[in-house]
Amino acid sequence: MRRVYLDHNASTPVHPEVAKAMLPYFTEAFGNPSSIHGFGREARDAVEAGREMIARFLGVNPEEIVFTSGGTESDNLAIKGVAFARERPGHVITTPIEHHAVLRTCEALERQGWSVTYLPVDGHGLVDPDDARRAIRPDTVLISVMHANSEVGTIEPVEEIAAVAREASIPFHVDGVQTFGKLPVRPREMGLTLLAISSHKIYGPKGVGAVWIRRGTRMVGIQHGGDHERRRRAGTENVAGIVGFAAAVAIRSREMGDEAVRLGGLRDRLWGGIQERVTDVRLNGHPTRRLPSTLNVSFKGIESESLILGLDLKGIGISAGSACSSGNLEPSYVLTAMGIPADLGMAAARFSLGRGTSADEIGYVLEILPGVVERLRALSPTGAKS
Amino acid sequence: MRRVYLDHNASTPVHPEVAKAMLPYFTEAFGNPSSIHGFGREARDAVEAGREMIARFLGVNPEEIVFTSGGTESDNLAIKGVAFARERPGHVITTPIEHHAVLRTCEALERQGWSVTYLPVDGHGLVDPDDARRAIRPDTVLISVMHANSEVGTIEPVEEIAAVAREASIPFHVDGVQTFGKLPVRPREMGLTLLAISSHKIYGPKGVGAVWIRRGTRMVGIQHGGDHERRRRAGTENVAGIVGFAAAVAIRSREMGDEAVRLGGLRDRLWGGIQERVTDVRLNGHPTRRLPSTLNVSFKGIESESLILGLDLKGIGISAGSACSSGNLEPSYVLTAMGIPADLGMAAARFSLGRGTSADEIGYVLEILPGVVERLRALSPTGAKS
Repeated sequence: MRRVYLDHNASTPVHPEVAKAMLPYFTEAFGNPSSIHGFGREARDAVEAGREMIARFLGVNPEEIVFTSGGTESDNLAIKGVAFARERPGHVITTPIEHHAVLRTCEALERQGWSVTYLPVDGHGLVDPDDARRAIRPDTVLISVMHANSEVGTIEPVEEIAAVAREASIPFHVDGVQTFGKLPVRPREMGLTLLAISSHKIYGPKGVGAVWIRRGTRMVGIQHGGDHERRRRAGTENVAGIVGFAAAVAIRSREMGDEAVRLGGLRDRLWGGIQERVTDVRLNGHPTRRLPSTLNVSFKGIESESLILGLDLKGIGISAGSACSSGNLEPSYVLTAMGIPADLGMAAARFSLGRGTSADEIGYVLEILPGVVERLRALSPTGAKS
Repeated sequence: MRRVYLDHNASTPVHPEVAKAMLPYFTEAFGNPSSIHGFGREARDAVEAGREMIARFLGVNPEEIVFTSGGTESDNLAIKGVAFARERPGHVITTPIEHHAVLRTCEALERQGWSVTYLPVDGHGLVDPDDARRAIRPDTVLISVMHANSEVGTIEPVEEIAAVAREASIPFHVDGVQTFGKLPVRPREMGLTLLAISSHKIYGPKGVGAVWIRRGTRMVGIQHGGDHERRRRAGTENVAGIVGFAAAVAIRSREMGDEAVRLGGLRDRLWGGIQERVTDVRLNGHPTRRLPSTLNVSFKGIESESLILGLDLKGIGISAGSACSSGNLEPSYVLTAMGIPADLGMAAARFSLGRGTSADEIGYVLEILPGVVERLRALSPTGAKS
């Protein structure tokens, strides 16, 4: 059976060059980077070369990069690291459409006596920087807003929010997992304080990520142990993972620009084709301020999960919302926060394209999708055109 | 130059079979295990097969295994997970010779109002279970003792301490990073509550580990985000890493027994050879209750770091104490806790053998080592025989 993967916002295949770059760090240069002998130094050199590659790509100092086990840990470290450096619980500002790594971390803070303001978003999922300004209190210690939403792809005005944060001298954390390696991200120039990034969304391995922490940021580590990562994150470095992450970044730096244009074109062709072939569809997310790779569509009258499984039977992989909350039978919390009615929220499907996506694949999806939607609508009691 | 790696307690080369098992999970079965389509299910199946393999090896239920980013995170999760499930700060019992992942986690708890008792160890590094019994207070919520010490290899009486803990209904965490895959470890039969294990000490990849958590243990997650690992550890699973970890465990289950005998023999040959060829040496750690792979020796009158670098110039990789505290110019905290004088503590070297270690390599080390020690002693003001 033909297989078409359109779930790149959930995870991506490791690029063959990346896998090749990692291999020697499993079986040959296998030392512990903390060891002072030659075996250790080889590993240390690889970690530091990876750090430099990623720092250069971001336009920051290598010392400001802390490697983690992935985007979730990066968000945990950024938020708790800043929070726990304070003597007493304070106030955090975020949005209701953040990834669970941010939302649940904020909830954990709330259980410890912190208060959290969730800024509203508009119908396109956009945050208003003026709302951020108005939410600031004397005890606000952190603002955290994602760069782009993984479900609908809306790109938030993080530069404007950064200006608000800077004016009030409040650290500003950005979950950049969905934009890093896809759009230009220069956290220092953008005025951010912290940026969480991940490897497996950009054709690198799972199990590795990083946080950029602007020099001088008052924070503590949250995983305790040895003196790794300048005491900001304990645990033996995932050397092969870091090498792979850096190799993936190197590839992004050469491919990213052209690819964004190409994927934006394919994405629009997919949306155009869906509109031509399927009735009662609705685009979710911002029409223009959006990740070029992301298309979120509600197919009125059907449930997302049925559509995903129907397409899966034809070898096509898509998702409802974030992979991390799949299996959930409620409408996406992101769409709910955007004010989208529950019936449309339950009917949303996300197509996320990647470097391997071809025009031919988009054609295949457009060939299969209308029939699947039609069958599901015929089966559903609410499926008739209303 | 010939290269001999005798630092297997710090890290190990990935077994070629392990690397081969991982490869398809980079480039082919690359889905996110949380995705419900076929790409995701392939990844989920691999994670669950890995969990079953490791559970079988430990003699526990797969549902009791939580995957982490490594031993450090496992220790953090075990200790903080149990601690933070309590309403208010309590009391923890541990030892002064634990890995930093345990010690610094306990220090972090102390900063939050917890109290910690550090049990004494004897000159061989052994904890007395009666001391553990006496240290118990009404507010004791956790006992944490390592299975074997990474620096000197001493194997602690964890079964006896487990009996003490069980009698008092206190959860008992064991850092099993140095014994898992080297000696039989059956945490349920041994009466433990939690066990931390790591992949990269047993020829698996870095960046992955696990905690066994006995069913019914009252604890919370410490990394917040999606509903991964039954909500005990958020973050996209490191699929290839888990596959590699499980493959490494499969190899351990067939090789472990014979290898322990073989390495014990080589280790004893190394120690015998050192005693024949070098004066003023002292064995650190228990003479018999010790990891078969570990030899810790003080070379009176020289500094560990000089010896490590001297051997490194000849292609031999050894360490002073734990890799995680290398670069430190103080005597090992483990040896200090064992009552070993600072001059001998500063002069300690750890040789840790592994599956690739051959009799020929031991012969090479015995050929090189005496000359290096002699030269260093001649250089050192305190180096003359005293």
